[in-house]
Amino acid sequence: MKLNLQQLNTPCLILDEVRLNNNIQRMSDKADRHQVRLRPHAKTAKSAAVLKRFQGTATPLTVSTLKEAEYFAEQGFAQLLYAVCLSPDKIARVAKLRQQHVDITVIIDSFSMATAIAAYAQAHQVRFSVAIEIDCDGHRAGLLPDDPLLVALAKALFVDDGIDFWGLMTHGGGSYDCQHWSEVKAHAEQERQALLSAQARLQQAQLVCPNLSLGSTPTVVAAEDFSGINEIRPGVFVFFDLFQAQLGACDEADIALSVLATVTSHKPEKNRIFIDAGGLALSKDRSTSAQHCDYGYGKVIKPDGTGFSHNVIVNQVNQEHGVIHLPDEVSISEFPIGSRVRVLPNHACMTAAAYPGYHLVTAAGELHWLERCNGW
Amino acid sequence: MKLNLQQLNTPCLILDEVRLNNNIQRMSDKADRHQVRLRPHAKTAKSAAVLKRFQGTATPLTVSTLKEAEYFAEQGFAQLLYAVCLSPDKIARVAKLRQQHVDITVIIDSFSMATAIAAYAQAHQVRFSVAIEIDCDGHRAGLLPDDPLLVALAKALFVDDGIDFWGLMTHGGGSYDCQHWSEVKAHAEQERQALLSAQARLQQAQLVCPNLSLGSTPTVVAAEDFSGINEIRPGVFVFFDLFQAQLGACDEADIALSVLATVTSHKPEKNRIFIDAGGLALSKDRSTSAQHCDYGYGKVIKPDGTGFSHNVIVNQVNQEHGVIHLPDEVSISEFPIGSRVRVLPNHACMTAAAYPGYHLVTAAGELHWLERCNGW
Repeated sequence: MKLNLQQLNTPCLILDEVRLNNNIQRMSDKADRHQVRLRPHAKTAKSAAVLKRFQGTATPLTVSTLKEAEYFAEQGFAQLLYAVCLSPDKIARVAKLRQQHVDITVIIDSFSMATAIAAYAQAHQVRFSVAIEIDCDGHRAGLLPDDPLLVALAKALFVDDGIDFWGLMTHGGGSYDCQHWSEVKAHAEQERQALLSAQARLQQAQLVCPNLSLGSTPTVVAAEDFSGINEIRPGVFVFFDLFQAQLGACDEADIALSVLATVTSHKPEKNRIFIDAGGLALSKDRSTSAQHCDYGYGKVIKPDGTGFSHNVIVNQVNQEHGVIHLPDEVSISEFPIGSRVRVLPNHACMTAAAYPGYHLVTAAGELHWLERCNGW
Repeated sequence: MKLNLQQLNTPCLILDEVRLNNNIQRMSDKADRHQVRLRPHAKTAKSAAVLKRFQGTATPLTVSTLKEAEYFAEQGFAQLLYAVCLSPDKIARVAKLRQQHVDITVIIDSFSMATAIAAYAQAHQVRFSVAIEIDCDGHRAGLLPDDPLLVALAKALFVDDGIDFWGLMTHGGGSYDCQHWSEVKAHAEQERQALLSAQARLQQAQLVCPNLSLGSTPTVVAAEDFSGINEIRPGVFVFFDLFQAQLGACDEADIALSVLATVTSHKPEKNRIFIDAGGLALSKDRSTSAQHCDYGYGKVIKPDGTGFSHNVIVNQVNQEHGVIHLPDEVSISEFPIGSRVRVLPNHACMTAAAYPGYHLVTAAGELHWLERCNGW
């Protein structure tokens, strides 16, 4: 279908193919340059049509839910890493995927899970691939590199017959709290060092660690040295967003995702307009509120992707209303009722999750529908 | 199916039938007592099985999206009010519903929309039912009761052949900014007075105003006088949530909705646990942050619905991780990996929207699946 944004039901997601492909190419090039395997995190796009743009279904993927794992397996992707610590109730779903010859690796950070997986493996004659999560910055789960349990846990995984020890993984999520790019660079190196030091402890115990995997988008973009690491797992870089741009991981012109919305009301006495994209359509993510420029619930741009003379942002949301307080320099007459705007998201992963798919705008100006999977 | 929360995939929504029915009964009783029509806002539950609990498919409904309107029409509900100002691009979808004999009323606050609807009606031989939105507290869209345009706009709706003027509606959303229940009561009266004063202006112009409709959950719960009003449109009262409880619109024991989650990791050195319900499963709504007690991303309770000795809350979220900093008095040993917790939502409408449906727990302890509709 030839591009006609006016014909789309709003709110909906617009995905810019040129930017998407550039983002994918840039990250793929960096991985090639540093000779690390790129295992993109599918949690952002959750779309086979997007993730196939790496290396088709041969792309190794990171997933954030078992629903994603099942969806991508059905779409032909066979190398998956489920990057949230597994819990006992979810072992059977993982086993089912492995019985379907999906090479899915799970992560754990406790003996109780090692025991539970081993028991399941023995009872059901399934082999599991298990990695240990390392905590590189106190941001999330995982064992600290110097945790006394680390070596013992790895040993337990080695001796269990139904388990292949995959290696160590970490996520430098602390980079999201940085204010300056130099801090992100330091986080990236800290992330790498955490894995190397954990690996060294395993080596001292004669334990072979086949994989060292790291990655948040900011740290992977910032990192200049991946020595010793063999895998990176950035996610949001496929789309990028206002938070990433302001952190320095991309330019605003790299942001591939936006919400198309329609102007529904005017408040001329307050120089305010209302759009049909509110808290559900934009998400209530306020991550830019901790940054230099607070973009409210998103930055408003024109349907053609260009900006206004001054920053226009969605200042308030109700469930289905977005309220835009126009700056004095921008006239309400630029937004007739029924006209369209696009909203760049604070956090692409959160915003995209409200929708069943994307309207991809191709370089040739055509529209294609790309479905995504949601839920658990 | 007999209740076994351990068998459910997490995260998922648990809906307590006893509380749900009580919430519905209490509001229905209040509407009866005050002889006003209850038109519950379906935006919270978005589920025919829930909304049928009022008066079956004869229940008049408020909807927040046309997707909801189409879903409920398909489920047999034929009296709908779409409570977001209509935009020109959405007229055709409304027309289609009206041609299917769905009595859907739309709202507007501008001449440009009156003109657009009239033009469509004439071109396509469809009649529309149109209400004017009144702004009672500066919170959202709508015309102020004393706006010079009000009478002229109503007149325009009267003279247009394809339009039936339905009346005036308002939404006392300003009540969400109140800190004390006495302020909510004042807001409720302000909401009523706004409609009455707008109606008086129409009467002076010899314009008959068939309906006066108001309602946010807090103002409708607080109101003691509905004189002159014939319809109320509360929404979140079917489930209630932490924000409403803290505002005073309900007790915490009335909250019917919770997220069931599984413990995935421990950080004993920090007395922290991780659950598989993060920003997507709980939503990033932080509405309680402006209240006396900030519940983070939700309050954690036991699977049986009872609380802990001290407040346990979800302090941080990543996309699929919830991080709980346990108070010193609560031991991590109460949360073995794989055990279940429930999380009461800050804002039920936002949290429910991430899910395809509810696990209803009946008074008899059985589980039933109730689907909901999402998206636009």
